[in-house]
Amino acid sequence: MTPFKLTDELVLEIQLLIDNQKDAELLSLLEEVHYADVAEIINELNPEEATYLIKLLDSDQTSDVLTELDEDVRERILNKLSAKEIAGELEELDTDDAADIVAELPNEIIQEVISEIEDREHAKDIVDLLRYDVNSAGGLMAKELVKVNENWNVLTCVKEMRTQAENVTRVHSIYVVDDEDKLKGRLSLKDLLTTATTTHIKDVYIPKVDSVNVNEKPEEVAKIMSKYDLEAIPVVDEIGRLVGRITIDDIVDVIKEEADKDYQMAAGISQGVEADDSIWELTRARLPWLFLGLLGGVCAAAIMGGFEDLISQHALLFFFTPLIAAMAGNVGVQSSAIIVQGLANDDLKGSISQRLIKEMLLAALNGVILALVLLFFTWIWQGSFITSLAISVSLIAVIIVAGIIGTFTPLFLHKRGIDPAIATGPFITTSNDIFGILIYFTIAKMLLGI
Amino acid sequence: MTPFKLTDELVLEIQLLIDNQKDAELLSLLEEVHYADVAEIINELNPEEATYLIKLLDSDQTSDVLTELDEDVRERILNKLSAKEIAGELEELDTDDAADIVAELPNEIIQEVISEIEDREHAKDIVDLLRYDVNSAGGLMAKELVKVNENWNVLTCVKEMRTQAENVTRVHSIYVVDDEDKLKGRLSLKDLLTTATTTHIKDVYIPKVDSVNVNEKPEEVAKIMSKYDLEAIPVVDEIGRLVGRITIDDIVDVIKEEADKDYQMAAGISQGVEADDSIWELTRARLPWLFLGLLGGVCAAAIMGGFEDLISQHALLFFFTPLIAAMAGNVGVQSSAIIVQGLANDDLKGSISQRLIKEMLLAALNGVILALVLLFFTWIWQGSFITSLAISVSLIAVIIVAGIIGTFTPLFLHKRGIDPAIATGPFITTSNDIFGILIYFTIAKMLLGI
Repeated sequence: MTPFKLTDELVLEIQLLIDNQKDAELLSLLEEVHYADVAEIINELNPEEATYLIKLLDSDQTSDVLTELDEDVRERILNKLSAKEIAGELEELDTDDAADIVAELPNEIIQEVISEIEDREHAKDIVDLLRYDVNSAGGLMAKELVKVNENWNVLTCVKEMRTQAENVTRVHSIYVVDDEDKLKGRLSLKDLLTTATTTHIKDVYIPKVDSVNVNEKPEEVAKIMSKYDLEAIPVVDEIGRLVGRITIDDIVDVIKEEADKDYQMAAGISQGVEADDSIWELTRARLPWLFLGLLGGVCAAAIMGGFEDLISQHALLFFFTPLIAAMAGNVGVQSSAIIVQGLANDDLKGSISQRLIKEMLLAALNGVILALVLLFFTWIWQGSFITSLAISVSLIAVIIVAGIIGTFTPLFLHKRGIDPAIATGPFITTSNDIFGILIYFTIAKMLLGI
Repeated sequence: MTPFKLTDELVLEIQLLIDNQKDAELLSLLEEVHYADVAEIINELNPEEATYLIKLLDSDQTSDVLTELDEDVRERILNKLSAKEIAGELEELDTDDAADIVAELPNEIIQEVISEIEDREHAKDIVDLLRYDVNSAGGLMAKELVKVNENWNVLTCVKEMRTQAENVTRVHSIYVVDDEDKLKGRLSLKDLLTTATTTHIKDVYIPKVDSVNVNEKPEEVAKIMSKYDLEAIPVVDEIGRLVGRITIDDIVDVIKEEADKDYQMAAGISQGVEADDSIWELTRARLPWLFLGLLGGVCAAAIMGGFEDLISQHALLFFFTPLIAAMAGNVGVQSSAIIVQGLANDDLKGSISQRLIKEMLLAALNGVILALVLLFFTWIWQGSFITSLAISVSLIAVIIVAGIIGTFTPLFLHKRGIDPAIATGPFITTSNDIFGILIYFTIAKMLLGI
């Protein structure tokens, strides 16, 4: 398979075809293109061209295209479609994707769009899904699933399943429920292929099935599904009734978004922006963290001002402040990142005090090695052994403290129920800069006996 | 479902039961526990206890437990098992997991283990898989799949599939091949449920199927599968023959590992360590980056030494070096992180020069806002307008240069085929510290007219 590659030439060709209304050529050009790739093309078009293309293509292709578009592009296209046209797209989509699109529509047209959906069962399911918090299992799940009653026999079951499977893109498991719709277990597809057709469901189903509550957080659902290698998981309400199903493709998106968010947080970028967002959006995501850095820098300046009397005799000390600040920052980020990652992956064992002791030993080991190298270098370079020694000894202290702050902060935030990822990046760098410089000058002053 | 929670009490209870050889109680306690959870328990036991448990439990449970264990724990357990016992575990595993375990075994016992596997077809598949690079689609794929010949009729097909499905844990798609085993297309499970049984395969199969080449990189496979929402993808060799299948659960692991690796790289940690690794391993992963920081700090000190003549009249300038270095570092990390992420997600459009212009504007906007705040503050605090102005103007220049370096470096590395993630974290912070301080003092010196 040669992966699809979006090129400027292709976009230009399509724009030309649209301008000249060459519908037949457009259709044949895009016929074999996957909807995810069509979405990439449409993201590059202006709203008029995009809408033209959406209206031209068949709605079983365009509905999927809509789900893959950038949010702002989708909004502009939906603005140009009638309620009936939008309903036509929703008709083709799975309930979870349809509900996501409906949730983005302006309030005043939602009712009209829903009323235009011909399949009333589908419309009802979409409305049901709108009630759930987007940040929960309920907000992720779809209503499409194959379920059978434990009191049926296999014959009824297979007949029912054929009907249900028509509406389900991917059949993963067949869920078994009782008369009150409570989830009892599952029938695997493999069982279906290998079991005789005369048995009763009650006697063949597997009474053990993993499920999640509608209120579970998406990250937790992702952890459960990836830990237990599940491709779909049923969702139950507070009293155990089967209300929906989450599939692994949605979870892959959750995992990627979580990873992107943590990465950006560590880099001092908030709000999940992308490189192609506007300068204004990028500024809003970046400026707050830069202000934090500015504040930290001013504090550092104030601290150094307090040691001004050292400057005439020991200017060398001042030359090494960037080094001290950088080391404090680097060590802090290293320590916090590994804790944040351990917390995210649930593979952190032992108590906080054990962690701190380990980090202290680690920092001390690294600190001594680095300090010896630095001592050797500054001594040769500047000739003053006592100043060089003061810088190196302070460096060890700074690295140990930075390691402890970097370890303790995310653990503390996590205990308090705050996302520890916030403690990585600028936050830890800035506080470590300040503490580092304070410790450095204090120790150096003591050692130099001034 | 109440998620399993590993507690010290549970581990202690199990250790006691093992010490007292209470086999029946151990078996009933662990009967209902998922293999991924059993693995978490075993990770906490010593090698003797762990081996005792592995030998006690049934091999259809323990084989899966083995795949989930930490690598070092698995190695110690396998050391204590005979070739025959290991072969028994491999017998129960899918070929991809079995091959991963075989690859970890010492060379001298691999042949013996393989010869002890009773299912010779399975043994042959495992040996086949050993030939592939772990860092390729071939290294990820399993041999278990359901395939039918295009020349069969549906009846033969269903019969064959029943046999094949016995060996396949999860049936995703039914792949269609020709007489030479070349991949022609697929039959969906849904088609199977809804099509009459008298048709010929040739007439019903879908001739379009995504596939990847055995040599494709795992990250690329992950991109393709998540973009096109695939749950399984067939793998073909150089001449198009179907050689294996990759399932989404393995891809979820690839995505998580990639994300963890990038995150650690940004935090200045190499080699994919975990919080629970030894101090020695953690030092090896962290020290190289700290040395880089040390080197940068020494360069910064040398640069500041070159401006020593400024120190008597304009000590304030020196007090603000940590601020300048921190801002240069923060802006650099922000810019590079967003580019690295855009490159990883393939959603970066436009040319390098457009990117640089945008980043320059963005940095200039942020820089001016921050510089004004700083100017106001330092002027009030120190009373010297001209020094404050020099600091603020330099800050703008430093931020713009930092943004450009942060944008350009990952783009340049990517063009050269080097993983741009290495440009984030300590690398960019250190170089930006140095450039920032150099620019700062140069501009300040010019403006102050010395």
